[in-house]
Amino acid sequence: MDFSYSPKVKELLKKLSVFMEDYIYPNEKVYEEQLNAQESRWSAVPPIIEELKAKAKKEGLWNLFLPDSEYGAGLTNLEYAPLCEMMGRSLIAPEVFNCNAPDTGNMEVLVRYGTEEQKKKWLIPLLNGEIRSCFSMTEPDVASSDATNISASIVRDGDEYVITGRKWWSSGAGDPRCKIAIVMGKTNPDAPRHEQQSMILVPLDTPGVKIERMLPVFGYDHAPHGHAEITYDHVRVPKENIIWEEGKGFAIAQGRLGPGRIHHCMRLIGAAERALELMCQRVQKRVAFGKPLAEQGVIRDWIAQSRVEIEQARLLTLKAAYMMDTVGNKAAKKEIAMIKVVAPNVALKVIDRAIQAFGAAGISNDFPLAAHWANARTLRLADGPDEVHKEQIAKLELRQYQ
Amino acid sequence: MDFSYSPKVKELLKKLSVFMEDYIYPNEKVYEEQLNAQESRWSAVPPIIEELKAKAKKEGLWNLFLPDSEYGAGLTNLEYAPLCEMMGRSLIAPEVFNCNAPDTGNMEVLVRYGTEEQKKKWLIPLLNGEIRSCFSMTEPDVASSDATNISASIVRDGDEYVITGRKWWSSGAGDPRCKIAIVMGKTNPDAPRHEQQSMILVPLDTPGVKIERMLPVFGYDHAPHGHAEITYDHVRVPKENIIWEEGKGFAIAQGRLGPGRIHHCMRLIGAAERALELMCQRVQKRVAFGKPLAEQGVIRDWIAQSRVEIEQARLLTLKAAYMMDTVGNKAAKKEIAMIKVVAPNVALKVIDRAIQAFGAAGISNDFPLAAHWANARTLRLADGPDEVHKEQIAKLELRQYQ
Amino acid sequence: MDFSYSPKVKELLKKLSVFMEDYIYPNEKVYEEQLNAQESRWSAVPPIIEELKAKAKKEGLWNLFLPDSEYGAGLTNLEYAPLCEMMGRSLIAPEVFNCNAPDTGNMEVLVRYGTEEQKKKWLIPLLNGEIRSCFSMTEPDVASSDATNISASIVRDGDEYVITGRKWWSSGAGDPRCKIAIVMGKTNPDAPRHEQQSMILVPLDTPGVKIERMLPVFGYDHAPHGHAEITYDHVRVPKENIIWEEGKGFAIAQGRLGPGRIHHCMRLIGAAERALELMCQRVQKRVAFGKPLAEQGVIRDWIAQSRVEIEQARLLTLKAAYMMDTVGNKAAKKEIAMIKVVAPNVALKVIDRAIQAFGAAGISNDFPLAAHWANARTLRLADGPDEVHKEQIAKLELRQYQ
Amino acid sequence: MDFSYSPKVKELLKKLSVFMEDYIYPNEKVYEEQLNAQESRWSAVPPIIEELKAKAKKEGLWNLFLPDSEYGAGLTNLEYAPLCEMMGRSLIAPEVFNCNAPDTGNMEVLVRYGTEEQKKKWLIPLLNGEIRSCFSMTEPDVASSDATNISASIVRDGDEYVITGRKWWSSGAGDPRCKIAIVMGKTNPDAPRHEQQSMILVPLDTPGVKIERMLPVFGYDHAPHGHAEITYDHVRVPKENIIWEEGKGFAIAQGRLGPGRIHHCMRLIGAAERALELMCQRVQKRVAFGKPLAEQGVIRDWIAQSRVEIEQARLLTLKAAYMMDTVGNKAAKKEIAMIKVVAPNVALKVIDRAIQAFGAAGISNDFPLAAHWANARTLRLADGPDEVHKEQIAKLELRQYQ
Repeated sequence: MDFSYSPKVKELLKKLSVFMEDYIYPNEKVYEEQLNAQESRWSAVPPIIEELKAKAKKEGLWNLFLPDSEYGAGLTNLEYAPLCEMMGRSLIAPEVFNCNAPDTGNMEVLVRYGTEEQKKKWLIPLLNGEIRSCFSMTEPDVASSDATNISASIVRDGDEYVITGRKWWSSGAGDPRCKIAIVMGKTNPDAPRHEQQSMILVPLDTPGVKIERMLPVFGYDHAPHGHAEITYDHVRVPKENIIWEEGKGFAIAQGRLGPGRIHHCMRLIGAAERALELMCQRVQKRVAFGKPLAEQGVIRDWIAQSRVEIEQARLLTLKAAYMMDTVGNKAAKKEIAMIKVVAPNVALKVIDRAIQAFGAAGISNDFPLAAHWANARTLRLADGPDEVHKEQIAKLELRQYQ
Repeated sequence: MDFSYSPKVKELLKKLSVFMEDYIYPNEKVYEEQLNAQESRWSAVPPIIEELKAKAKKEGLWNLFLPDSEYGAGLTNLEYAPLCEMMGRSLIAPEVFNCNAPDTGNMEVLVRYGTEEQKKKWLIPLLNGEIRSCFSMTEPDVASSDATNISASIVRDGDEYVITGRKWWSSGAGDPRCKIAIVMGKTNPDAPRHEQQSMILVPLDTPGVKIERMLPVFGYDHAPHGHAEITYDHVRVPKENIIWEEGKGFAIAQGRLGPGRIHHCMRLIGAAERALELMCQRVQKRVAFGKPLAEQGVIRDWIAQSRVEIEQARLLTLKAAYMMDTVGNKAAKKEIAMIKVVAPNVALKVIDRAIQAFGAAGISNDFPLAAHWANARTLRLADGPDEVHKEQIAKLELRQYQ
Repeated sequence: MDFSYSPKVKELLKKLSVFMEDYIYPNEKVYEEQLNAQESRWSAVPPIIEELKAKAKKEGLWNLFLPDSEYGAGLTNLEYAPLCEMMGRSLIAPEVFNCNAPDTGNMEVLVRYGTEEQKKKWLIPLLNGEIRSCFSMTEPDVASSDATNISASIVRDGDEYVITGRKWWSSGAGDPRCKIAIVMGKTNPDAPRHEQQSMILVPLDTPGVKIERMLPVFGYDHAPHGHAEITYDHVRVPKENIIWEEGKGFAIAQGRLGPGRIHHCMRLIGAAERALELMCQRVQKRVAFGKPLAEQGVIRDWIAQSRVEIEQARLLTLKAAYMMDTVGNKAAKKEIAMIKVVAPNVALKVIDRAIQAFGAAGISNDFPLAAHWANARTLRLADGPDEVHKEQIAKLELRQYQ
Repeated sequence: MDFSYSPKVKELLKKLSVFMEDYIYPNEKVYEEQLNAQESRWSAVPPIIEELKAKAKKEGLWNLFLPDSEYGAGLTNLEYAPLCEMMGRSLIAPEVFNCNAPDTGNMEVLVRYGTEEQKKKWLIPLLNGEIRSCFSMTEPDVASSDATNISASIVRDGDEYVITGRKWWSSGAGDPRCKIAIVMGKTNPDAPRHEQQSMILVPLDTPGVKIERMLPVFGYDHAPHGHAEITYDHVRVPKENIIWEEGKGFAIAQGRLGPGRIHHCMRLIGAAERALELMCQRVQKRVAFGKPLAEQGVIRDWIAQSRVEIEQARLLTLKAAYMMDTVGNKAAKKEIAMIKVVAPNVALKVIDRAIQAFGAAGISNDFPLAAHWANARTLRLADGPDEVHKEQIAKLELRQYQ
């Protein structure tokens, strides 16, 4: 298990670090200002994003997430880890490098399971950052933590599939550039439990697709990206839009979610690091009761505890990445489950301490802490709640002694 | 130490409970819809509020917070506790009963320390719910957890005082009905440490008062109430606007904050109770992995743990209330400090568990969980961060053995 | 709900407090020395105990636990609470006042369910402190947290019952004065689930009773009291030894365990208070890195946190006591379950912090911290593990919404 | 950072694993029985130990801790990690492989700083397992967490040094084979703060050395090893017994404690692994409330949580080991401090959960859980309390932003 950085990674990391300092951090406020200056926060993507994307592409900091070297950077998960972590330090960064969820997961699905036609039509524009995509899996009416509950129907009718169902948390659907959804639903309710589901490509302008509303997250609208509730009412798409083949929904989800989960974890570690950094800087500047906050024992305890937790979470993430690279996503499922539990919880703890150290400034938007916290909180639920992952770990652990 | 309810309290509680069921819970969504239907969320107060206020006043559910029986309901803190807790179950409730912060604290200051003229001009309209008020104490440039850091200046100039400084988290200043601020600042930097500060009444329409911006809380704007950053630029008010007298800022703050803090705690217990109730209902309805969530051991553990924590927090709050009533706010300062630490943290834990049990619905606004969470989180900072209260407790504890 | 102390309680508390200072604390070391000076720690009870018992009896500090006023002090649970808490500050105290487990529970069983003959033979000597008793319920071969698992057999044979089974954690059986065991076992495996069990009196000198070994608790032998593993091999006792009647084992256990559990909790609060007191004293005396430990922020945080936790646990215990007194043990079962979870965990946390503040001295026997910790740790298991009590709380909580 | 095992380590690990199964686990009870069968638990070392030592030596499982390849196995810290972890699974194992504290630390001191004469006289017999040693640093009268407080005096008098002071927690001094102590004390109170201290070799049979008593740890006597309080009353040793030279006490302690600390952490991870293994086995066998404990959600949560914590602690320990090997103990001080905080706390949590899952059996000596717990608890204090290490981490962290 070798966690050393290759020269290639070192170089990319250096470049990325410079880019973050020069272009990302100083533009976080710009992004927010542009967004608020629009007629509506939903009407357009702040122009700074496309400007920065152009720069990033030029620097070769583009599609780094994709292990496939034909379409992407060809980095292993382990190589991508420190880069993704660094992007995670800013909420506006991932898209700038075309490495943001859910597009990355969708692109990976298309690379792995897409037909040439599907790749040409959807993958290439996504890789170019020309369009955006969403992923319609979770449903409001059932506990979607158990994915077998998902009940949208996908019915074959001649040369078409007809999709009907209600989905929510289709993140990114608010973006005016979002053109395509990957929808999960049941093609065959009578098949074995894990073969009833399929995934299908649905262009968002197809008749019957309706964005009902955008869901907030702890008060954040996350405009213009957003989290949509979408009804699919007898939506018809050509039969060629099915991904891989009928009944492969779970198989694709397994493949899609492994990398998706670990990317979230890498970014969360970056978010935690940034919070710790901000806290360390702030407490040396603010004075209360006659001394800088940095000299208060309790604050020092928070800093130490945060460092200790981040270090461990990072190492476990690297181990999971290493295993995905060497023994495959399936054999690494315990490790993936572990980091999926650890990373959001560590990030939440570290960020919460930083908020407390910042005082009321911490809960406002003057610093990125509250927004990062809300983001991390969603990740105790998104891609499976903690409890489902823990159950998985326990099952694998107990199995050794049966 | 007798925590029994008097017949008067029992009757009020019953009436209040019916009111909550009939008018508050069903109108939470109405409030939000009216707010969003306005040209701007800041332009007006949703009409449902004034409708409900009229009803509440008619029912005698009005100004229950005020121990003074000339101006208010004349209830003790202990008597008010279960009523305030019940109001805390809904974020729109306290105002409906004219029991919302910061108006309650401001009214209490005026009752205790106001001149007849001040009472007539500001207290009566506040008691009638005709105007709203804000409290300008915290400053962005200093760690205001140490209130001696506060540096806005209040300078006597002839028959006027001139106020200059920058304040933030002046909650309620966004409300179009908000007419008056109580401002804390330094009148005499050379006086002994706790006699440098004074409080003064500043009508918001005085020249030089400028609301710079409204601060969000974890993405919530809390419109139209809001949290304002306000600059006071050589603002001139008549010398009669001083409260009590020069140098009494700390003394007033002590008097104001005791009841203010315990009211927050009572409401937080109500918020926690509601979260637990919602969780218990939800988990019996949602099925995952072949059984209702309510049969999952971990969920049951959350429910038990939540019940245990709420019960204890409530009892400690009652004890603090009892002591405030019997030995006074000063002698009860350890107990007040204790609940100020306990109540927000318990509420946060209980609400967070409920959110997790709700899945993604929990972080949206479909249920009041996320909003209550954000509110509780601010209360680990507002009126003194946890750490300042713990320091106080430790000091009093250690003192016994010196 | 009135937690005030009656004059009677105030007077007893004062007397008890003086007794603790004068006779208990100074003799803790004496007890240990006498024990170690014996030929074996198991051969006799250190003489100081009987000396102190005589003094306590003379002072009227005797059998305070017993609500029955014919046989005992006739105090309610609420009245007994502060007294029991104070006794809990020292591990040698409860016996001195004839208020130690398991004798108190056994005496209560005899008062409630015993025949006149049983009372004469066993209750009176126990009340006089002349003999000691043990309680044989838990079995090594089954998960006894589920009491229906208990499988020792009690079979009627003519005028006798024949008892066969293996029991452990029969605490107190090591004491040379221990003469009688209350044994729980199955009289009728075919009866309804909660009517299969009975309790029966077994003199320890009956043929077939064999103490196999004494079990240590975290290295403590708890000599001469001890925790015995006992085999009952076709032990014959007269049919009159059955308590109440066949099939009443569960009913008696319910009655016995309620008070038994709350007494443990009261004592644990006393143990936590003493740990906090010792910690506060110690940290003001020890200097590290240029200042007393008492000035370290983290230590102060521990002190505050400990105070906050103890206060809440005590209030909840008082509430449970009040409910047992007013609505009965059955209606108070949620409250009893709650304190049974809370008190040991709070005590463990507080004592553990004190240990950490004491440094290595804390884990030795130079201070009573480690011994109190071990005692508290057993009480997360004894009389039902935390998890069983939490399950009970969750069930009652959820039931309200079915 | 490469954590892979070399072929040499793999082979040693396999051999060690077989040895543990064949000779260690089955002899844990034998050890205890032999100890209890002796006239006194302190009179001799149970013979099984020397038998097993002979076997281990023969197998080449001897002195694996020593990076020096002349005297020891020549393994790096990273190579030793998995081996040490495995030894940590049993409390009797480390000595069998001559890898137990404090002898390992003492041997390392002698290898690094000892004269040829000192090595011949003390190191060689220690390496051969013929004698044992102790380390006299901590003092009862001062907070020894701040090592500058240590006040035993070491005064040069002609060709001798005269040592006077009171020490405690001189672990291992109870062993009849213990012949030598390394004593830390002040040679020059006027030197700079970290140059006042020296270390010196004191044969335990020197006049003036008196073992006052053996200190228990949570009721465990840890006989015959034990933890001694020792008075040094004008003890005279030849001047050649000084280690390195006067004033180097701190420098040696730094060198000694790094490896000593990480060895403790490695063993703690082994202890945690064993507890998890025992828990997983037990809960599949015990049935309560109609199903195996292994099917209770809360138990499964404990198992998952334990696995997650152990994995992270192990990775952090490996990182610290890797850094010690590559950049040196000094540059690795933050990492050493981190694992010294993490490992005992993780072990305590995991073992405590296992105890709870075992029920009352868990707190007895029928399983090694309680003993391992007590051992882990001492390690939150030994070699520096958590708080001192956290302070160190915070200082290093904050320094980056000054």
